[in-house]
Amino acid sequence: MGCGSALPTSKHHLSSQVLDLRGKLFMIDCGEGTQLQFRKTRLNYNQISDVFISHLHGDHCFGLIGLISTLSLLGRTAPLRIHAHPDLEALIRPQMDYFCRENKFEVQFQPFNPREYALIYEDRNWEVYTLPLIHRVCSTGFLIKEKPRMPHIIKDKADFYQIPLPQYPAIKAGADFVTPDGEVIPNRFLVREAEAPKSYAYCSDTAYNEKLIPYLQGVQMLYHEATFSQEHLSLAEYTQHSTALQAAQIAKAAAVEKLILGHYSARYPDEKVLLDEARSVFPSSFAAQEGDVYEW
Amino acid sequence: MGCGSALPTSKHHLSSQVLDLRGKLFMIDCGEGTQLQFRKTRLNYNQISDVFISHLHGDHCFGLIGLISTLSLLGRTAPLRIHAHPDLEALIRPQMDYFCRENKFEVQFQPFNPREYALIYEDRNWEVYTLPLIHRVCSTGFLIKEKPRMPHIIKDKADFYQIPLPQYPAIKAGADFVTPDGEVIPNRFLVREAEAPKSYAYCSDTAYNEKLIPYLQGVQMLYHEATFSQEHLSLAEYTQHSTALQAAQIAKAAAVEKLILGHYSARYPDEKVLLDEARSVFPSSFAAQEGDVYEW
Repeated sequence: MGCGSALPTSKHHLSSQVLDLRGKLFMIDCGEGTQLQFRKTRLNYNQISDVFISHLHGDHCFGLIGLISTLSLLGRTAPLRIHAHPDLEALIRPQMDYFCRENKFEVQFQPFNPREYALIYEDRNWEVYTLPLIHRVCSTGFLIKEKPRMPHIIKDKADFYQIPLPQYPAIKAGADFVTPDGEVIPNRFLVREAEAPKSYAYCSDTAYNEKLIPYLQGVQMLYHEATFSQEHLSLAEYTQHSTALQAAQIAKAAAVEKLILGHYSARYPDEKVLLDEARSVFPSSFAAQEGDVYEW
Repeated sequence: MGCGSALPTSKHHLSSQVLDLRGKLFMIDCGEGTQLQFRKTRLNYNQISDVFISHLHGDHCFGLIGLISTLSLLGRTAPLRIHAHPDLEALIRPQMDYFCRENKFEVQFQPFNPREYALIYEDRNWEVYTLPLIHRVCSTGFLIKEKPRMPHIIKDKADFYQIPLPQYPAIKAGADFVTPDGEVIPNRFLVREAEAPKSYAYCSDTAYNEKLIPYLQGVQMLYHEATFSQEHLSLAEYTQHSTALQAAQIAKAAAVEKLILGHYSARYPDEKVLLDEARSVFPSSFAAQEGDVYEW
């Protein structure tokens, strides 16, 4: 929803993305104006269950209080989890107490250690891991992985053999089916493979960091910041950001399926220079723009 | 820069205006996303000397921290004055200390008493007064008045009579000029009247409040919130907002020159209903839209 870096431009909004996990929404980063951008997506605020904040620079979190305030005005009752650096709660809580006094939902701050790779979220279907990044302040990427899905029972076969519902879980888990006459129907005739589990990684803001590569191995979609082009490599190093080429080198080394670039410095009137640079190393690169939807 | 009310829509941004005082800029209210809207105006951030916050609801002040942060990143050194309810500083200061550590300019919070009519700002040319409003929390309007301007000395006459520069102030103040030969040139031949002093009033958020009328008498431009139409009068009363008709009644009673409406409820897909209602009472009414520039 925002692809710019620290300074807003008339073209780019501040960092924020929404990840659709088969109906549940995760928000990743929440720069100022995120709720206005979210509104444009026509998605439902109430589907946002969790917000993940990569680091405590304003362009990644100043939109949180506005989002919370709007959810409150809309009468939300479901809790909202905010996964972030431990310092965030003390910065937001006083504002919530002042501005959102009529709030009817719980905001649960779930601090994580930004310096370690760790599982910080798990539900029946999904896992989220932290990825320590290299930046001027503690910065953390996120690796979101779907758990392997059970195979689907083929409806026609289930009907034909009149498989009782209570046996579905066992068959999904690999069991054969034995008919009342004692005939054994091998599992492979009854099920079809589930889709491959989804995986997404979000790496912003960070200097070039080869330590990420093993964690990113084979993910379907990698978002990696690309604040600068190689022309400004020394500036990237100084500010601990990445160039588009470096993002592509990480994508290639990790053999990801698709690379999404973002967090563009305001100095580039057109991100084509960044995209070309990335594609020279990793052809399946894309330069995100506000409002873009990437299927995964 | 924003004409919506509390809930952002895909059409309207949150409350903020910029007033150009012959080159110096005042910002009035600063809802989330204001710095992004400001960027679109192509005005210069550095010309903003003062920010006036009408009340501490998020849609009028959540953009402040982002604005301060951006001014800091841009290397501002001139102080920024923020005129607001006394509670604001304690809510913003901890965030500034955390997020704007490299700030090189001073943010001067200048609290005012929101319950009284008082002069809160004065420089050589301008005065700003508070206007107590009626709302669910303390809410304050602002009356911005230019001081009467000195007449201009007519250049041709000054050249013709060779008036020495040190005598200009006296002549501007009304003195005649006496030539070296003792001839008295009456003041009225030497000067022409200055333009009328400008005046602007900002009234948001407020219930219908007739007590405002004497303070607003004859102002050139009045911004008055018009959250609702008369159809939703009871809602306006309940939430302590105004209808467009009420705004127009205030404008008419105060004999202002022009009325600007804003702070529209998200329920109106088109503000024409509000504009028509206001014009039925006060024809010189206008429904502000984001990006509009009103000459004054």
